[in-house]
Amino acid sequence: MASDTRDRLIRTTSRLLRQQGYAATGLNQVMAEADAPKGSMYFHFPGGKEELAAAAIDRFNERVSARLAAILDESSSVRDAVTQILDDYIRLLDRTEFTQGCAVATVAVESAPDRTVLAESTDRALRGWTDLVADALEAEGRPADEAHRLGTLVIALIEGTVVMGKGERSTEPLFAVRDAIRDLLATPFPAAAGREWAEPAAPSPARDATATATPA
Amino acid sequence: MASDTRDRLIRTTSRLLRQQGYAATGLNQVMAEADAPKGSMYFHFPGGKEELAAAAIDRFNERVSARLAAILDESSSVRDAVTQILDDYIRLLDRTEFTQGCAVATVAVESAPDRTVLAESTDRALRGWTDLVADALEAEGRPADEAHRLGTLVIALIEGTVVMGKGERSTEPLFAVRDAIRDLLATPFPAAAGREWAEPAAPSPARDATATATPA
Repeated sequence: MASDTRDRLIRTTSRLLRQQGYAATGLNQVMAEADAPKGSMYFHFPGGKEELAAAAIDRFNERVSARLAAILDESSSVRDAVTQILDDYIRLLDRTEFTQGCAVATVAVESAPDRTVLAESTDRALRGWTDLVADALEAEGRPADEAHRLGTLVIALIEGTVVMGKGERSTEPLFAVRDAIRDLLATPFPAAAGREWAEPAAPSPARDATATATPA
Repeated sequence: MASDTRDRLIRTTSRLLRQQGYAATGLNQVMAEADAPKGSMYFHFPGGKEELAAAAIDRFNERVSARLAAILDESSSVRDAVTQILDDYIRLLDRTEFTQGCAVATVAVESAPDRTVLAESTDRALRGWTDLVADALEAEGRPADEAHRLGTLVIALIEGTVVMGKGERSTEPLFAVRDAIRDLLATPFPAAAGREWAEPAAPSPARDATATATPA
């Protein structure tokens, strides 16, 4: 069926983008690995490679968003959720011998000014993930502004661990980042620190019991 | 002079890697933009594209390391140094219309298992930058383990902001990350939080006066 071919083209492209990025992913490789009949590519994606890659980023975004929402929902705190996300990625890097990354990261860093359709897809993904984390932080009692800033930091940090893990071909920096962000998220966010005239920040209610366990 | 050609090849490659990554950077483009005579490429880099790219990553690493060391040295705290690094990158993204990133990030995310020479260069760069930040954090009084974890987080975060800035084509996420990390670094690192049997953590001496300014 035609729709099966379209689906295979999208899934194959998403996988190749995660591994090697946009420029390295040729249409011939996609067609071959997706076992797609000749002509099917431009039938489904008249806009060519950029349209296909944008569809792959959107599909990747859907899957990551669903997984991120599920982890945030199941975890007792955003702190535990972030820990689990990093643990999952550590296992994935190990299992795939440092070949798997984030399709959005690879496309974003090699972005060209004229690829506006593709840029809209990476933008949508990054903003959507940031909002998911920010909403969860707000639900934990953090003010909206602070939740947005901290949510952006969490997504930037996860994207950065892709660079560290693949760039060092090691999971060590991911363990280090995981433990560091766990420690940083264990304290109420000092929203007012360094802002001289800010109101005193109220400690946020911790859903995670260990989050407020300070040493005696 | 031959050495001038070699230098131009390295500098041109470094710039192209920052903008578009490894796969998109063809040798013909490098030769043309470096104004390099025919044959000079394989004369200087018998290992071809990978050897040239590794030399470009090493050069980029040298420049970034020198700049990072200078900022850490001139700043009154690691917190202020990280703020300045992100402010500098915000200005660079703005000025270059979101085309400039990190040569290490672009090469790392599209890394292929067989590119071991290139992987050694990205690994060396990321570890070196992490050590610079970790050493500065230790000099501020943080224990070595904690300084390493937090230094890794800082470098991952900076790499992640490259993904966010280019992926969203906006400086907004960088401002958000800058303010969030400023807040997080304003408190003594709760190294023992969430680790039930850890010894009480001693507050680190703050070189930055605002770093300990907690609300009344």
